[in-house]
Amino acid sequence: MKIENIDVSSYPNSEKIYKQGTLFPEIRVGMRRINLYPTVEIVDGKRIEHPNDPVVVYDTSGPYTDPDIDIDINKGLPRDRMQWKLDRGDTVELPEITSRYGRERLADRSLDKLRFPIQHKPRVAKEGCRVTQMHYARKGIITPEMEYVAIRENLNNEVLGIDSYITPELVRKEVAEGRAVIASNINHPEAEPMIIGSKFSVKLNTNIGNSALSSGIEEEVAKAVWSCYWGGDTLMDLSTGDNIHETREWIVRNCCVPVGTVPIYQALEKVNGDVSKLTWEIYRDTLIEQCEQGVDYFTIHAGVLKAHADLVGKRLTGCVSRGGSIMTQWCVIHNQESFLYTHFDEICEILNKYDVAVSLGDGMRPGSIHDANDRAQFLELDVLGELTEKAWEHDVQVLIEGPGHVPMNKIPANMDRQKKACHEAPFYTLGPLTTDIAPAYDHITSAIGAAIIGSLGTSMICYVTPKEHLSLPTLEDVREGVITYKIAAHAADLCKGFPGAQVRDDALSKARYDFRWKDQFNLSLDPEKAKRFYLESRRNAPDSDDKFCTMCGPNFCAMRISQNIADACEK
Amino acid sequence: MKIENIDVSSYPNSEKIYKQGTLFPEIRVGMRRINLYPTVEIVDGKRIEHPNDPVVVYDTSGPYTDPDIDIDINKGLPRDRMQWKLDRGDTVELPEITSRYGRERLADRSLDKLRFPIQHKPRVAKEGCRVTQMHYARKGIITPEMEYVAIRENLNNEVLGIDSYITPELVRKEVAEGRAVIASNINHPEAEPMIIGSKFSVKLNTNIGNSALSSGIEEEVAKAVWSCYWGGDTLMDLSTGDNIHETREWIVRNCCVPVGTVPIYQALEKVNGDVSKLTWEIYRDTLIEQCEQGVDYFTIHAGVLKAHADLVGKRLTGCVSRGGSIMTQWCVIHNQESFLYTHFDEICEILNKYDVAVSLGDGMRPGSIHDANDRAQFLELDVLGELTEKAWEHDVQVLIEGPGHVPMNKIPANMDRQKKACHEAPFYTLGPLTTDIAPAYDHITSAIGAAIIGSLGTSMICYVTPKEHLSLPTLEDVREGVITYKIAAHAADLCKGFPGAQVRDDALSKARYDFRWKDQFNLSLDPEKAKRFYLESRRNAPDSDDKFCTMCGPNFCAMRISQNIADACEK
Repeated sequence: MKIENIDVSSYPNSEKIYKQGTLFPEIRVGMRRINLYPTVEIVDGKRIEHPNDPVVVYDTSGPYTDPDIDIDINKGLPRDRMQWKLDRGDTVELPEITSRYGRERLADRSLDKLRFPIQHKPRVAKEGCRVTQMHYARKGIITPEMEYVAIRENLNNEVLGIDSYITPELVRKEVAEGRAVIASNINHPEAEPMIIGSKFSVKLNTNIGNSALSSGIEEEVAKAVWSCYWGGDTLMDLSTGDNIHETREWIVRNCCVPVGTVPIYQALEKVNGDVSKLTWEIYRDTLIEQCEQGVDYFTIHAGVLKAHADLVGKRLTGCVSRGGSIMTQWCVIHNQESFLYTHFDEICEILNKYDVAVSLGDGMRPGSIHDANDRAQFLELDVLGELTEKAWEHDVQVLIEGPGHVPMNKIPANMDRQKKACHEAPFYTLGPLTTDIAPAYDHITSAIGAAIIGSLGTSMICYVTPKEHLSLPTLEDVREGVITYKIAAHAADLCKGFPGAQVRDDALSKARYDFRWKDQFNLSLDPEKAKRFYLESRRNAPDSDDKFCTMCGPNFCAMRISQNIADACEK
Repeated sequence: MKIENIDVSSYPNSEKIYKQGTLFPEIRVGMRRINLYPTVEIVDGKRIEHPNDPVVVYDTSGPYTDPDIDIDINKGLPRDRMQWKLDRGDTVELPEITSRYGRERLADRSLDKLRFPIQHKPRVAKEGCRVTQMHYARKGIITPEMEYVAIRENLNNEVLGIDSYITPELVRKEVAEGRAVIASNINHPEAEPMIIGSKFSVKLNTNIGNSALSSGIEEEVAKAVWSCYWGGDTLMDLSTGDNIHETREWIVRNCCVPVGTVPIYQALEKVNGDVSKLTWEIYRDTLIEQCEQGVDYFTIHAGVLKAHADLVGKRLTGCVSRGGSIMTQWCVIHNQESFLYTHFDEICEILNKYDVAVSLGDGMRPGSIHDANDRAQFLELDVLGELTEKAWEHDVQVLIEGPGHVPMNKIPANMDRQKKACHEAPFYTLGPLTTDIAPAYDHITSAIGAAIIGSLGTSMICYVTPKEHLSLPTLEDVREGVITYKIAAHAADLCKGFPGAQVRDDALSKARYDFRWKDQFNLSLDPEKAKRFYLESRRNAPDSDDKFCTMCGPNFCAMRISQNIADACEK
């Protein structure tokens, strides 16, 4: 099996730039600089050009948009950042992978044709060591990862004329106190460090992954690259179909953002979908298998308890979380407490050996407006708070997952309760969808909720594509979902007054006012589509200096008239 | 010229129903009833069917979805409601149209081929009479229009087991006190009455209209019908291209929702786009021309004053309102106060003779995040408040137009100031867009703002299509814009706790939980698209009883598992 490179041509008029570290000069943080055309003024028939400052934007596309890096999906991305882990001297390389399942798969020659061609030996913490960013942070250590994300959050300081507002020390403090997470498995050095926390820019997660009904490895890798290209900050591989192990290996090796999974999905596949056969041992082996592959965070529905099972039937839409419904069913079948809950300490002791963050799943998230903020949801949230403290005892970084379907008036209560119950661990919500009546448009019903909850302090929002509730998303759906959520995240950043965010809005608006059409496209979240729409009803190319568009035509362009007014008032 | 009917097939499994009036038994208010399939339960191998209540939804599609009414675009819609106006005995029929321009167009035989085939003689108030809904309301009179909208706002009372929450008397009171508007020109009996006010469901306006660069009459009529079909509550014809007069006649005669215009656009076309040549006389003639055609509300930028002109140049994006920029330029050129402001009393005395509402335009709405809530914007808002009181003295109904581009944190101040400055006259906002960085997705950037400001009390939101800032919208863009704004309006209604709104969400969610796929599609805002997306990656038709979709596949359907849990817990 050989996978063709995914075509992601560079953003127009953009350059990949790198900012160097100060504490760690070997750090190079990639960013995208959008270069702008000058504003042209004609004075007494003479053309005067006023240069416009370039705009630097947060860049999740990694090596894919660096012309100096050769991409080969079959080799995976560069692993330079492994040196940071080695330098700390607290890990060892294992001679081979250790999970039972991983070894079975490796021994199965029939899988050779599917397998990622290169095997990296996994690393693990030395006996007695914890290798999480939280561990270092609590010891007062600023890691390269911390300086990296601090640099990454500071955009356009020069234009704003301000100092770094996010310092490595602030990052360390937020991670130490659990208010922020840097998910960075020591076995995933392909990923560029990023930070999830309410003091930082709002991040967005995308979900990909096959199901039993569709989609192969090549398609999922393409979606992963595509997601990074358009702006996904993290990526969850939610595969539930064939060859989950091999699919994930391809994705992780080629993914420049942190990768998350829901290990219970694969555990269930291992027992052929028979919930009753799930055991702690199978689950534990799955965790180790995925830790060694380099997954950066696990969604674990450890807050779903046996005692809550009877609440499921009282709801309009029951339990809509796959992991939550599986664990509830397991509790009911065995009449036992969830093994995720009873073994939570052991789970944490595995996770802190690789620095895998735990994303505490909201198994009882409401699946309809009707069920929002109900007893089942909030009871679980309290359990998540208890588990948060437990994870922190093990120096494991924690995210808290949130809803779901919530009407606008009930959104603030979600944020308030989460903050309180979960001791300000970062909130990571799916939407929420603000109405149930628009399947095929749920990227929009949920972007409304995501923008609102993001503005209230949610640290990461999980995208929803137009295919939600209906079908698996295609590449185009991934793009639509990512851009929609970039909008929600950015609207929230503006609302929070996050420094640097408005620089891009202002530059785009100035370009619009100047009729610098190309700059308007290039500064937008989706230059290709903006340009395509403009050209659709257009005779001239955007190189034209037309001071109007087809919406208003030449006589009715308010912007052109405004410029005449401003000129007249000046005279 | 003969225009083909626009194909709007009925919504699946929906019936047009009519509710009769009580005060006025001749009133028949059209609604759409979505009939649902039963919930099927298998008990001991036997199939038991539990019926599901049908859901009644607000219906803006008028005769277009009534199989008993023959549609012929070349004849226009039925005009039965003219009888209500006649019964009041306060109007007279004019022997012919009276505007100078209208008569010139009528005399021009070269236009015959473009002209709408039927000429209706216009009506006007008798000397000394005012025929506005506000006038009647203040006199304590409940009109058929008022009972009509009251019935229309009460949806699913039976299902909820509640009495009418919107009574004709509440409508009368809100209209009398200026907090709600029923825009219903006596010369537009084709329109079904609807109400705009914060105590009622949030409405959405769509904009269509040609520009000098594109689009003919047939296309604009198609957009108008399409807008009504998908759910537009009112429609603005913003044509600035050729044959504005004739285009509008076709639209008004075939439009079952209130039609608005910005008369200054046509006035400017009459002077070939030369702002300096605009005069009060030309504008006045344009008002009469359009009043006689049946336009239901006029956007009038009377709050743009000479004194504010120099603020335009201080902004990042100047003045982005076409009407506002035209009037500002006129003030600067002539160094005179705006004729819209100085002649505002005369304007009101024209409007109250036909019951045309005034929508006070926000000529200084911000065109960028940077300019939001600035001095220019709020100074104008104060002037709009002064004009509101003046219009009310003439019994003219008033809407207040609002922004624009506003970051989320600055939205509440807009609503608060508008309420206070404009004495609770209904607010009618364009979005607002919550970021500038997503051309081609501005339906989404603005739906976020629209949902928020709608939830805070804005009565009507003006849609934005994906083509905003780039190009004239196509039919598909109109559909995308309308559905997006239906989402925003409905999310706001849910947030406000508007009775009846959640019935549809609950029914759809129950259908989802029951795997009644067809009901899920039929209850959605866009059944065709939801079904198409579902089928895209599907082997079976939705008639199948598959208890999963391709997103999760058979083993991972949380809803199916939930049902098993509920069953197990019951036993």
